Amino acid sequence: MAFKILGVDHIGVAVNDLEETQNFWTAIGLPCTGQETVAEQKVTTTFNPTPNGSEIELLAATEPDSPIAKFIEKNGGRGGIQHIALRVDDLPAAIADLQEKGIKMIDTKPRKGAGGADIAFVHPKSTYGVLLELCQHEDR
Amino acid sequence: MAFKILGVDHIGVAVNDLEETQNFWTAIGLPCTGQETVAEQKVTTTFNPTPNGSEIELLAATEPDSPIAKFIEKNGGRGGIQHIALRVDDLPAAIADLQEKGIKMIDTKPRKGAGGADIAFVHPKSTYGVLLELCQHEDR
Repeated sequence: MAFKILGVDHIGVAVNDLEETQNFWTAIGLPCTGQETVAEQKVTTTFNPTPNGSEIELLAATEPDSPIAKFIEKNGGRGGIQHIALRVDDLPAAIADLQEKGIKMIDTKPRKGAGGADIAFVHPKSTYGVLLELCQHEDR
Repeated sequence: MAFKILGVDHIGVAVNDLEETQNFWTAIGLPCTGQETVAEQKVTTTFNPTPNGSEIELLAATEPDSPIAKFIEKNGGRGGIQHIALRVDDLPAAIADLQEKGIKMIDTKPRKGAGGADIAFVHPKSTYGVLLELCQHEDR
């Protein structure tokens, strides 16, 4: 394999009310260390890192046609776990390797995600229902 | 706070077909390192660790009234991300701390989960839709 999985980068949680939900995660010991709006994905996200390097990311829609708004609508109006992301050392190599194995990618080229990461989503048909992101950080 | 969150322990993925879904995770570089049936939870699980200590756990129902079977039924017959688990250093202290903060627990006492861990679930009402497990391992 031409790439390595380095770990679970983050878990993306769709939320209706960013402040209210953030209060829960802060209360259990995972305070927010940053907030960012990603215009392209129509989402505002807060980062809640844990000591082993895996983060909880809360995701709130900024527009009614945001993927997060659609997830919540499909989920009966409730928030929930929307996706997971694996950190890799070489995203272009990972995309090429997965495609070679017949795994369908939503993104066949890396694009920019939150926190400056390069990201690419795997198609849920290939993962049997999991929205799976692969991401590469310059500094992690 | 009388306890510490040590990291993301695992992500629990509900699956219809354990072998078929495992093949996907093996193909992307996360081979299974163990399999266990937890009779009490009516589930068979495979462990797929990543280098930062967070695992992907695949969960297949062993009985029609398994929580995993119910999740898949609610999810239109498809598998998907069912829960996330945070590793803590002191589970009884964590349960007490969360209850003191008015957070509702499904399990008010630790019980045994897969891999010999002590586990307790937080009520999704308190987490705004996320099924959240807290777990403590003797050796991690």
